[in-house]
Amino acid sequence: MTEVVVLRIGHRPERDQRVTTHVGLTARALGASGMYLVGRDKGVVQSIRDVVDRWGGDFFANDDIRWKRCITDWKESGGIVAHLTMYGQNLPDVIGEIRTSEKILVIVGAEKVPGEIYGMADFNVAVSGQPHSEISSLALFLDHLFEGKELHNEFPGGKIRIIPSRSGKHTEEL
Amino acid sequence: MTEVVVLRIGHRPERDQRVTTHVGLTARALGASGMYLVGRDKGVVQSIRDVVDRWGGDFFANDDIRWKRCITDWKESGGIVAHLTMYGQNLPDVIGEIRTSEKILVIVGAEKVPGEIYGMADFNVAVSGQPHSEISSLALFLDHLFEGKELHNEFPGGKIRIIPSRSGKHTEEL
Repeated sequence: MTEVVVLRIGHRPERDQRVTTHVGLTARALGASGMYLVGRDKGVVQSIRDVVDRWGGDFFANDDIRWKRCITDWKESGGIVAHLTMYGQNLPDVIGEIRTSEKILVIVGAEKVPGEIYGMADFNVAVSGQPHSEISSLALFLDHLFEGKELHNEFPGGKIRIIPSRSGKHTEEL
Repeated sequence: MTEVVVLRIGHRPERDQRVTTHVGLTARALGASGMYLVGRDKGVVQSIRDVVDRWGGDFFANDDIRWKRCITDWKESGGIVAHLTMYGQNLPDVIGEIRTSEKILVIVGAEKVPGEIYGMADFNVAVSGQPHSEISSLALFLDHLFEGKELHNEFPGGKIRIIPSRSGKHTEEL
């Protein structure tokens, strides 16, 4: 099973709280194992942990991470690093090569990221080369990486589960 | 060519400005024709129009839309309505049927949507049945609808274009 962890950089605690929470939840829902957050934000970490507690799985969220050390350690342990940026190579052109790795750190920046990241990453990956959202970029990256199979993932240990429905809201308490 | 328009409902002008802007930009980048916004928010509309002006294409963004009228008009003109909600049927199970339509209104709600929407929609579509983000849900919906081809879309008339690069930032002024 491929291990994918998100490294969220450039997070500004007041301004980015909601977007970073969406990044973390997207990572969890679409098959990543966890998120490292550069900067301190216990609110974001707690929101994500609350979702894990209620909805299951073992996704982790840790803040106060040093990005350079994180990238170096990841590479030393044999993993590769993919940085999502609209300046990179288009997703369909590189995802096949990225998929050959079993350990992938995905860097998701906010508006500005340190220039050094471009050189440290094994892949700089664009999702269309147009400006949109780091949340949608991460979603498409994970979905293309896992080829849609992640949409059938199970999340054991949750307290609630949705029963898919044509036109209502049906949940099951577990 | 399939026509897709996003109807954004439940937008709260202060709290949701950034997320709704990301919804609009994701819609544009991934092949939708425009976004109708329920509620008034000239800031969001202007941010999206600024991107269109600079990056090209003819995506539209209009606020102050009445949702019920919008849905009724859309259906009367022969279009179908897909509502993104984690309570719906899983994306891979319904996208094939949705793709047979050439005119699709995609409803993207914020936290709460009126219950009536579930009944008015032709499809209630979940992206995994787990909580994450309306931005990632929309991204995956469009990517599965267009089968990844949208990642190669051109946006004529822009003032700037990115030259995809392995490790730098290269743009071209047009």
